[in-house]
Amino acid sequence: MVRYPNGQTYVPVEKKAKKKIPSAANRGMGFEKDINDTNAYYLEKGLALIYKRPTPINIVKVDYSHGAKITQAYFECQSTTDYNGVFHGHYLDFEAKTTRSKSSFPLNNIAPQQVVHLRNVQKQGGIAFFIINWYARNETYVLDAAYVCDFYEQKPRKSIPYEECKSHGHLVTESFRPRYDYLPLVEKYFLK
Amino acid sequence: MVRYPNGQTYVPVEKKAKKKIPSAANRGMGFEKDINDTNAYYLEKGLALIYKRPTPINIVKVDYSHGAKITQAYFECQSTTDYNGVFHGHYLDFEAKTTRSKSSFPLNNIAPQQVVHLRNVQKQGGIAFFIINWYARNETYVLDAAYVCDFYEQKPRKSIPYEECKSHGHLVTESFRPRYDYLPLVEKYFLK
Repeated sequence: MVRYPNGQTYVPVEKKAKKKIPSAANRGMGFEKDINDTNAYYLEKGLALIYKRPTPINIVKVDYSHGAKITQAYFECQSTTDYNGVFHGHYLDFEAKTTRSKSSFPLNNIAPQQVVHLRNVQKQGGIAFFIINWYARNETYVLDAAYVCDFYEQKPRKSIPYEECKSHGHLVTESFRPRYDYLPLVEKYFLK
Repeated sequence: MVRYPNGQTYVPVEKKAKKKIPSAANRGMGFEKDINDTNAYYLEKGLALIYKRPTPINIVKVDYSHGAKITQAYFECQSTTDYNGVFHGHYLDFEAKTTRSKSSFPLNNIAPQQVVHLRNVQKQGGIAFFIINWYARNETYVLDAAYVCDFYEQKPRKSIPYEECKSHGHLVTESFRPRYDYLPLVEKYFLK
């Protein structure tokens, strides 16, 4: 082991760099951006109209001295899902999530009100699903919301094992553009 | 005319009060609140699932010293419409507007990107409409988005006359609860 004169161990630069793992938030942002790009592609080609809902913000103070400037506000939890839209006249609603785990998708990624919302969507005849990205495996699946909600409501389960996601989900084709081509799967498995 | 000793004219209190007309923003808020209440009623009864989109906010500065506190942000224009949701599996999208005028609905209430958005919704087979409230007449109409967009795109027209709205629109029944019962009209005139 090599040491500095002060006794501290020497760590080569490449080892240090290897440790730099993107944070959960940033990983999410990357996947979210890819889904947004996919939706922009669908809009451009006239295939579907799918929007990301803005994050709700609780506004506390607004300064009206020079126009309306918000000076104090806080992020709020999304009470619904991130995405919704229209495809062949049908209502679509989904949540896109990414996990770094190789073995299971942790269900604490999903908020209870999102489960309630997705159940309501299906009750109204809408199409509801999850897009789950397995970051470490480079695989992405479309999973029926009913299946995920059933899992969520079974108390002892805290995650969806990869094997279950693979056998019940539908693998999304990844390419340059559209990045995650989930629409053909929706057409094949969810449209009646 | 009665004058104060400093020469200023005396205005009786009741005359002053009479002048107090609610501002455009507040009027809008009242109608918006009623539509939100109507949607809450529909959700409660399991008739439809319709949400108000949050107003998009452009966040400039966030202070992370005590959690995430937004310290500088600005309101942005809604790039789509205020409401969307699902009814019998169909995608619904609409904008709710109120006018104080007795004779015409000014089209400058509608943003160009909203017209583009509503055209896109109809291209994808979704149901798109306006709910127009004539505040001074206590009347509210559901109007097909295509009809309003056609008006909007005819350059010389700056407003929709009341008579035209009445003859092409569908009168919404008002009551205590639901406040504006527009869903039966959607079912009757827009569902195929």
